[in-house]
Amino acid sequence: MAGNSIGQLFRVSTFGESHGPALGGVVDGCPAGLELDEADLQGDLDRRKPGQSRYTTARREEDKVKILSGVFEGKTTGTSIGLLIENTDQRSKDYSKIKDVFRPGHGDYTYWHKYGIRDYRGGGRSSARETAIRVAAGAIAKKYLKQFHGIEVKACLSQLGPIKAEQYDWAQVEQNAFFFPDSSKLDALDEYMRDLKKQGDSIGAKVKVVASGVPVGLGEPVFDRLDAELAHSLMSINAVKGVEIGDGFAVVEQKGSEHRDELTPEGFTSNHAGGVLAGISTGQDIVASIALKPTSSITVVGQSINTSNEAVEMITKGRHDPCVGIRAIPIAEAMMAITLMDHLLRQRGQNPDVQLEHGPIPGQRA
Amino acid sequence: MAGNSIGQLFRVSTFGESHGPALGGVVDGCPAGLELDEADLQGDLDRRKPGQSRYTTARREEDKVKILSGVFEGKTTGTSIGLLIENTDQRSKDYSKIKDVFRPGHGDYTYWHKYGIRDYRGGGRSSARETAIRVAAGAIAKKYLKQFHGIEVKACLSQLGPIKAEQYDWAQVEQNAFFFPDSSKLDALDEYMRDLKKQGDSIGAKVKVVASGVPVGLGEPVFDRLDAELAHSLMSINAVKGVEIGDGFAVVEQKGSEHRDELTPEGFTSNHAGGVLAGISTGQDIVASIALKPTSSITVVGQSINTSNEAVEMITKGRHDPCVGIRAIPIAEAMMAITLMDHLLRQRGQNPDVQLEHGPIPGQRA
Amino acid sequence: MAGNSIGQLFRVSTFGESHGPALGGVVDGCPAGLELDEADLQGDLDRRKPGQSRYTTARREEDKVKILSGVFEGKTTGTSIGLLIENTDQRSKDYSKIKDVFRPGHGDYTYWHKYGIRDYRGGGRSSARETAIRVAAGAIAKKYLKQFHGIEVKACLSQLGPIKAEQYDWAQVEQNAFFFPDSSKLDALDEYMRDLKKQGDSIGAKVKVVASGVPVGLGEPVFDRLDAELAHSLMSINAVKGVEIGDGFAVVEQKGSEHRDELTPEGFTSNHAGGVLAGISTGQDIVASIALKPTSSITVVGQSINTSNEAVEMITKGRHDPCVGIRAIPIAEAMMAITLMDHLLRQRGQNPDVQLEHGPIPGQRA
Amino acid sequence: MAGNSIGQLFRVSTFGESHGPALGGVVDGCPAGLELDEADLQGDLDRRKPGQSRYTTARREEDKVKILSGVFEGKTTGTSIGLLIENTDQRSKDYSKIKDVFRPGHGDYTYWHKYGIRDYRGGGRSSARETAIRVAAGAIAKKYLKQFHGIEVKACLSQLGPIKAEQYDWAQVEQNAFFFPDSSKLDALDEYMRDLKKQGDSIGAKVKVVASGVPVGLGEPVFDRLDAELAHSLMSINAVKGVEIGDGFAVVEQKGSEHRDELTPEGFTSNHAGGVLAGISTGQDIVASIALKPTSSITVVGQSINTSNEAVEMITKGRHDPCVGIRAIPIAEAMMAITLMDHLLRQRGQNPDVQLEHGPIPGQRA
Repeated sequence: MAGNSIGQLFRVSTFGESHGPALGGVVDGCPAGLELDEADLQGDLDRRKPGQSRYTTARREEDKVKILSGVFEGKTTGTSIGLLIENTDQRSKDYSKIKDVFRPGHGDYTYWHKYGIRDYRGGGRSSARETAIRVAAGAIAKKYLKQFHGIEVKACLSQLGPIKAEQYDWAQVEQNAFFFPDSSKLDALDEYMRDLKKQGDSIGAKVKVVASGVPVGLGEPVFDRLDAELAHSLMSINAVKGVEIGDGFAVVEQKGSEHRDELTPEGFTSNHAGGVLAGISTGQDIVASIALKPTSSITVVGQSINTSNEAVEMITKGRHDPCVGIRAIPIAEAMMAITLMDHLLRQRGQNPDVQLEHGPIPGQRA
Repeated sequence: MAGNSIGQLFRVSTFGESHGPALGGVVDGCPAGLELDEADLQGDLDRRKPGQSRYTTARREEDKVKILSGVFEGKTTGTSIGLLIENTDQRSKDYSKIKDVFRPGHGDYTYWHKYGIRDYRGGGRSSARETAIRVAAGAIAKKYLKQFHGIEVKACLSQLGPIKAEQYDWAQVEQNAFFFPDSSKLDALDEYMRDLKKQGDSIGAKVKVVASGVPVGLGEPVFDRLDAELAHSLMSINAVKGVEIGDGFAVVEQKGSEHRDELTPEGFTSNHAGGVLAGISTGQDIVASIALKPTSSITVVGQSINTSNEAVEMITKGRHDPCVGIRAIPIAEAMMAITLMDHLLRQRGQNPDVQLEHGPIPGQRA
Repeated sequence: MAGNSIGQLFRVSTFGESHGPALGGVVDGCPAGLELDEADLQGDLDRRKPGQSRYTTARREEDKVKILSGVFEGKTTGTSIGLLIENTDQRSKDYSKIKDVFRPGHGDYTYWHKYGIRDYRGGGRSSARETAIRVAAGAIAKKYLKQFHGIEVKACLSQLGPIKAEQYDWAQVEQNAFFFPDSSKLDALDEYMRDLKKQGDSIGAKVKVVASGVPVGLGEPVFDRLDAELAHSLMSINAVKGVEIGDGFAVVEQKGSEHRDELTPEGFTSNHAGGVLAGISTGQDIVASIALKPTSSITVVGQSINTSNEAVEMITKGRHDPCVGIRAIPIAEAMMAITLMDHLLRQRGQNPDVQLEHGPIPGQRA
Repeated sequence: MAGNSIGQLFRVSTFGESHGPALGGVVDGCPAGLELDEADLQGDLDRRKPGQSRYTTARREEDKVKILSGVFEGKTTGTSIGLLIENTDQRSKDYSKIKDVFRPGHGDYTYWHKYGIRDYRGGGRSSARETAIRVAAGAIAKKYLKQFHGIEVKACLSQLGPIKAEQYDWAQVEQNAFFFPDSSKLDALDEYMRDLKKQGDSIGAKVKVVASGVPVGLGEPVFDRLDAELAHSLMSINAVKGVEIGDGFAVVEQKGSEHRDELTPEGFTSNHAGGVLAGISTGQDIVASIALKPTSSITVVGQSINTSNEAVEMITKGRHDPCVGIRAIPIAEAMMAITLMDHLLRQRGQNPDVQLEHGPIPGQRA
């Protein structure tokens, strides 16, 4: 299937390049009856949008989203929802110098080889600007999940380079420009980013995404397990190189007697599994982490080649994020929400007689 | 979409429970003209099959696969290939005691809540036995990829509990029962497993999968990126809790100037990206790692509940793998092969005029 | 997507050739909790099976279906259902003479050109034998639809060559070998078929399929309208060359004032629409008709060519149905049931808060 | 899957209501390298657009399409193509009177029951206005098919009410406002339509669609046969109640010896099959016909009900087409082109080693 869609019953299809006239998409399968207007989407778009702090790219985009269909008299109608965000602050001239050059670590090379052509302006379709529409679509899913099922999705930056969150105070996350849950590390983060800027370099990051209030039973074995679909949607975010569910790679050194989450009549005693067993949600929090690589657009000189296969030295000017992980917070939330929404609809379709229970109350099936 | 299928143009649909009469599936989309017989599939099935060493379950299954359609006079015809493996060594009685009890860390709980019913015999559909058909289907993909495109997929155990491979001698992998690439650690592994057996416990593991000879250009942005689809297919394997592409979670602490793979007229100078940039293959080796949790079926006593929500103490008897990572080697290869095969066909369909180039020869597009 | 699957939430994937060892498939997405055993499937298979009367092929197949998974203790578990039917009465030798020859009007030619290879034994995958698995899968859908939603699907032969049903007595349909609803025409049909046999020729037919008890609201605009998906599934039956919903081609000469079905507080006053408006079920009977071409396997001499492009004269010996329409009755029912089942699940998933109402009670939404 | 998408490798997803701000969509999977600008799409949009003659609705829409992505420096890039058409001439007030009333024969009733809400302005999503985006997407497919494969798709009105085309002069089709191939009937058509207008009634029609230059081998048995997929895409057009391939319903009365298309070394001697055998294209013209019902929006008084289930008498004012078949010509072409394009890509992906041969040259496979 053509690759610009995700989801089965709740399906998001997108288009748009970094320096084209607009980004847009189709959100298909949102049930009728959800109160929805553009303000519901704008909040998350503003969290993602560039130019919000000195730690992100200086490009300024209003990212004003328009809903072009699927909503009538303030409510969704069950028909497809058209979304549009116009691009306003393209500086395509910045890119003419790299027209024939491949930036190391960038999709320039692979797009050119795959398609025989590339839109070199700002990465074209490979730009993270594409994710604005994911965030808008995700906001629809988030609103529906919260309103009709009490499911909430939130994310935070759990690590930036060497600096790890040691405590998770979710109330802090929206209070700082790093979406960081550990306020004791904010000064260290600020200092680290200033140094990085001087170096003209970039840094990787880790983002944690958590969904609470998820009922037992979401996920379709064996290939469309909830964790497999989450891995798909989270790995589809630009720059992501790893996905963990629950304890993730720490399980490699765990014994079965340590890893298993024991059950009591009052609920699970731990959540090493991250809320998914055998690909199906357990009713506990769904917990995932993603690793985001440092962006390749830096001003440290690197070796590369041009389209004539000649060696060149290059640096990438333009306006770039030194740590793409920061702005990935609402994107990660959006992708988890989209996947949960899709699986909620699938579960309702396939197992309608099964009560979608909220929370982990083992053994209570009537 | 119902969850027992994976892939678009190369599509595998499976059925079968651990203690049912048979496992089977449909492999749809294999191009016509591939020489194929059952022996081509049996090799990988034998690598996966239980009872091969003292480190795996004592269940004995011949895992003899039958090809029921899609092959005529020794060649694939382009029509769907039916596969069947009969179960022969079920001991369902072993399970009657746990009929009403949930094993901690096992899919018992989620299946029961999702479907309102569960086949408690050996995990039913949630059993890793289901993967036998994946391995058979993967063997078809592996043969096609190798024969027509020179692509090879191989995997090894890179870590078992605390014991890591420190050198990768691929020639060693098929020489030992652990599929371990570092022969200096074999004694340590053996000792570790003996201890574990005494404890009645299980252990996690890490598996590395590598595809070589992959052309530039596989992967469909933005949602069906090659890495996103690999994350999906690898995370769909039982017990997997994490997926990495290339450097994976190590990127969190990398700077852009370290991470990026520089290009020279002779090729890339490194492969931190694991062969995927912006979701499209670069022509370098595709490198992925997965984390497998320790199996929950152990004889260490654990707290749990029964379907009446009463507290119970339980141990899981029966015949189980103390480290499911070992037998996951051919499964991981199969899933990577299935995903690559699918993307190869998609790329041919969508970009037929683009030469599918082998190997990393930057800048050589005419 | 590979072409051997149909449906989204209720998904059927099949394999098998006319003269291979077996036919089989995977039925994915059947909700848990349906009582099901092989006898439930056998009834419709027996209605379709060859050798039932002197009007159908003399090939004798028991068509005994096995359920290999997805059912536990007499009930579906929500996991995928594996089906298998072994072929027992192949006479492949009958076909060796036509190995290099294309039968006019047959898929020989297109399969050979598409795939570069063909299984010439009995049409291989293009044989109507493939439909046995559709019938088995359809029987599952039929049982579910009837038991949980009161939906019933039935079909009859409405025309054979020049002989049309003039009255529809559904009680008659299962009483005669033609599945014909007008018993006054049975003698004429018998005579017609005897003549045809003498000529060695075949004849076309028309089949009507009706679903009753269908709730309002099935069908997903705009591309997956219920009628569009029914057209897809019915046209996928071998030999079908036309599909009509409701009045079908008669609408070409109707005026709006004649065609429209008026509404009263007691319900619709007519059903020209065939139970679908704007792609969504109205709560009235779903009515479709299909045209089946005369089979190409006849003993009247015809002009053709061989694979060396030389002119040949040919007749098709072997055991063939002079009117494939007769055995198409259960196949048409199966395809309509599969499509309705899929849309029922989709509607439940996407619009769960909307009562699935039975029958045409206009204006009663609370 | 959510219902607003069609196609697998060439995939069109749409949004938009009759009286919303805009219509739009995503065309995904168009190969890179096709020269494309808005003028390429505008031609077919102008053929479809309202207000072109006195035989169609008086609503005036410029239907100016914008390409928002996927094209760079005049060529497609292989990424998704965003399309947008703004609505300019909505007169939503016309509809306030029918807010609570169901028009007989219209989707009002089913939308309201399915979704529990309806956008009553001009039919909302069920309006034929939605097809403008299909036509724009189809124009992309048509250009690609013609330029890279020599495939051409054309359609004409073959019957309007009682008036049938008796000769097919394709050069005439674009010369008259009826897209009618038989110029001897133009006066009769004009007179018929004038009478109809006086009556305030509407009339059905039949449209023929033909694709020439199609290679042998398109179509994926068994469910995604080319004819089954064409039936799906053509039946998805508003008002269509029947689809025929080749001789269609005439086959019911044909004998096998009449129907079969004989082969000679120079090619087929006839095309009763309409260019498809066993679901795969033969290399002959693909020929399909569709029946379009008379629109329900007429000024002849009819019985209906309102949302309180009270009887009402109603007529539909507003601006409507008395024969929707006329404007369906470019829509039918678009849907056939979209389906052929999808199957061309699928065939290339799945059978790349098979030459896509143009034209019916039996037996010439080397």
